[in-house]
Amino acid sequence: MLSIDLNCDMGESFGAWRMGNDYQLMDYVSSINVACGFHGGDASVIRRTVEYAIEKNVAVGAHPSFPDLQGFGRREMKMSALEIFDIVLYQVAAVKGICEALGAKLHHVKPHGALYNQAAKDADLAGAIVRAVKAIDETLIFYGLSGSFLISEAEKQNLKTASEVFSDRTYRPDGSLTPRTEPNALIIETGKAAAQVLQMVQTRTVSAASGETVSIAAETVCIHGDGERALEFAKEIRRRLINAEVSIRPV
Amino acid sequence: MLSIDLNCDMGESFGAWRMGNDYQLMDYVSSINVACGFHGGDASVIRRTVEYAIEKNVAVGAHPSFPDLQGFGRREMKMSALEIFDIVLYQVAAVKGICEALGAKLHHVKPHGALYNQAAKDADLAGAIVRAVKAIDETLIFYGLSGSFLISEAEKQNLKTASEVFSDRTYRPDGSLTPRTEPNALIIETGKAAAQVLQMVQTRTVSAASGETVSIAAETVCIHGDGERALEFAKEIRRRLINAEVSIRPV
Amino acid sequence: MLSIDLNCDMGESFGAWRMGNDYQLMDYVSSINVACGFHGGDASVIRRTVEYAIEKNVAVGAHPSFPDLQGFGRREMKMSALEIFDIVLYQVAAVKGICEALGAKLHHVKPHGALYNQAAKDADLAGAIVRAVKAIDETLIFYGLSGSFLISEAEKQNLKTASEVFSDRTYRPDGSLTPRTEPNALIIETGKAAAQVLQMVQTRTVSAASGETVSIAAETVCIHGDGERALEFAKEIRRRLINAEVSIRPV
Amino acid sequence: MLSIDLNCDMGESFGAWRMGNDYQLMDYVSSINVACGFHGGDASVIRRTVEYAIEKNVAVGAHPSFPDLQGFGRREMKMSALEIFDIVLYQVAAVKGICEALGAKLHHVKPHGALYNQAAKDADLAGAIVRAVKAIDETLIFYGLSGSFLISEAEKQNLKTASEVFSDRTYRPDGSLTPRTEPNALIIETGKAAAQVLQMVQTRTVSAASGETVSIAAETVCIHGDGERALEFAKEIRRRLINAEVSIRPV
Repeated sequence: MLSIDLNCDMGESFGAWRMGNDYQLMDYVSSINVACGFHGGDASVIRRTVEYAIEKNVAVGAHPSFPDLQGFGRREMKMSALEIFDIVLYQVAAVKGICEALGAKLHHVKPHGALYNQAAKDADLAGAIVRAVKAIDETLIFYGLSGSFLISEAEKQNLKTASEVFSDRTYRPDGSLTPRTEPNALIIETGKAAAQVLQMVQTRTVSAASGETVSIAAETVCIHGDGERALEFAKEIRRRLINAEVSIRPV
Repeated sequence: MLSIDLNCDMGESFGAWRMGNDYQLMDYVSSINVACGFHGGDASVIRRTVEYAIEKNVAVGAHPSFPDLQGFGRREMKMSALEIFDIVLYQVAAVKGICEALGAKLHHVKPHGALYNQAAKDADLAGAIVRAVKAIDETLIFYGLSGSFLISEAEKQNLKTASEVFSDRTYRPDGSLTPRTEPNALIIETGKAAAQVLQMVQTRTVSAASGETVSIAAETVCIHGDGERALEFAKEIRRRLINAEVSIRPV
Repeated sequence: MLSIDLNCDMGESFGAWRMGNDYQLMDYVSSINVACGFHGGDASVIRRTVEYAIEKNVAVGAHPSFPDLQGFGRREMKMSALEIFDIVLYQVAAVKGICEALGAKLHHVKPHGALYNQAAKDADLAGAIVRAVKAIDETLIFYGLSGSFLISEAEKQNLKTASEVFSDRTYRPDGSLTPRTEPNALIIETGKAAAQVLQMVQTRTVSAASGETVSIAAETVCIHGDGERALEFAKEIRRRLINAEVSIRPV
Repeated sequence: MLSIDLNCDMGESFGAWRMGNDYQLMDYVSSINVACGFHGGDASVIRRTVEYAIEKNVAVGAHPSFPDLQGFGRREMKMSALEIFDIVLYQVAAVKGICEALGAKLHHVKPHGALYNQAAKDADLAGAIVRAVKAIDETLIFYGLSGSFLISEAEKQNLKTASEVFSDRTYRPDGSLTPRTEPNALIIETGKAAAQVLQMVQTRTVSAASGETVSIAAETVCIHGDGERALEFAKEIRRRLINAEVSIRPV
């Protein structure tokens, strides 16, 4: 029987500001990536998110970021490999310790936003992130963009990896994501997104926006948690996968 | 043979700003309290401080604070017991994880600044801090003001404690510290400070500023790390203790 | 003809996090208090909020706070009078300069959250805030809790003041607000809130929760901007005032 | 008689952390660039720095930065032109208002660190900074790297400019600074640095590290304020200029 992981970024509220319907969304995904306080999340939000995850029985990952709260970790920053190592070490350590204090076990790490995107294209940066994760716990699973340096550097350092694909992004003939600056970068229609996920899971291919069929490794699918329709979207992806007898479970 | 722990707050530099001669001071103390990023310290400073501690073979503790970087954690804040639990959990988890990633073991926790002072007088606050520490690791030693709620609440929750005394502060007849707002609160002269430490270690008493001899539990002595004369001061305290055949080692 | 000012806290979004329906709410109030970046608001949010205010023709005030983003400025902090002076100076200067750069004129200052509440009861604190406002521009109007030290200290320093009352809070026989910790502190029903405002404007009295009629100075009414029903609430208060031929305009 | 401005970055302390000997250094420079709280400086530090500047009669400028306290504004960030406009507007407004509250007049603006370096090479970025400064006050003088987009964009928007040169950096044949990554980027010897300044002021040329004589616009010289020898260095530069009958005064 085929299986896939559905992951979602969570714990991104901060202080008085709320983001996402974490508690509801946890019914539809199998693993979550918890913001560590550098782009979102604070000590109370993290604790509460881990409590929810335990209740809903989803796998908990840490979601470290550049230190950029006001920019939500979405702005590129130029930090040295050692600085990157240090901030990932700190953030993953914090979330791991909170998990263990509450009786959960940290399952994976997935870099956030600009850190994810930059490291996907930069082997040194990816290597620094991986080293930090490995120093914390070498049994952690490393989530990264399918086909990117995030995956190859983690493999080089013998971490278990999960190749991530996107349900609502289109792909190019070389297997990379269509940049958000291009008009057809996003898949708006839920049915189309679900179909893309099914194809990736069942055939290990994706149809590029230009028509070509491209082979792709798909071990975890990112479900976006913010926005009005996030809940509806997650529900539909899940329904389609289950109808197709694909099991939804953590990597 | 008598023994005592000398502890010092460290890792309080932040970004481009340096505070204290941590590396040198580690030659004279037996345990350090590492700032966790909320009043000082950042991910790189913490990592470096733990590396130094491993090299110098001193016991590493976490030094959690109110979230007040600009005020250096020295300003009172009114936070709920749950908020306090959450911020202590986060900070101790971060430093513990960094220690373990580098091959060290977290040895103790000592609250910082206003959090320390408020909790010393407030059982609920002290209890919340202790619960967080215990949730992280119930073998951690809890450093707190001798005779305060920090110690009694930790004992109530069955944590191992270390009663902290001060070398450069005077005491009142009830065993409490003379408030800093009073003229004779500080002991400036190194010889006098060393003598006070020796008396506390050897006789388990302290001479109040007003003359009375007061009994006091003294398991760890706080050595201040900032200021011009910190290094000279630590060296002299250490020399006197060793001359008196008091062994200096972690609790 | 009677007139009253309706004011609302705005510009409290931060980075990726949104708070309040500022743009819509500006149709119903006559003055707004713009968060200055210390409890909410960031440089982009402030600029955008002032642009909206110019478009909607509402009077702009600065809304300085304790430096506590994660706690939204709602937690008491113990800062010296000079520290308070400094942070108010900085925040008001920033918002005033942004207003003038965009072609608006800063109209008033109203302290936020815990700073407002502490200063209402503490003459020194209130005095420090007033000094900072006066140093920036002595024609600024100082909004403060009716009958509190905020008003008396501003008068003492010859600032023009606006006594603030609340539409959705109940009062005690001495004219102070019923503390939020008491069961009947809030007025939930819109009709009741509107009636209270009308009474305050028309008779300069308020009916205490215990029944007594208390005289009260009411020059500006605080309309809460967050929460589901904020828009509905503001609309209704405005409708009732206009029906009663009370003019709604800035102080 | 020839004249030149000596400028120095100041007000870069933060909370409990001190940086630079601002008060002493003000005896040797004619203008200062005050950190605005985004890379260093806080409300109290800014107020104190402006008070010192009034006492020492030096011209005060604002020194806006990327929002990166931990990185001291030295790390590249990718922000949109509008975000840059907003953060410069906020920072310059804050320092300008504090100056005016204390009785000083803001004299100039000089971007800091990575913002300065990126904008020197990026016309859009430079243009956004200049627009913000102009929106605040079109009589402000814009300090920027001699020969860079900072100067040309400010001229394009009709701001008065001051072309900045460096005493302790070497130049390349095209008039640009030797990158810090190259071995001969820095001039260590005070005498050599002073000679370079004199040559730039007297002949409007600089000798490139490779020997060529290059023409350069020099209206203000940056004196570094941190580091052990900053004071000695400033004193010597000043002495040499005065000996050569060059007048030291703000642009």
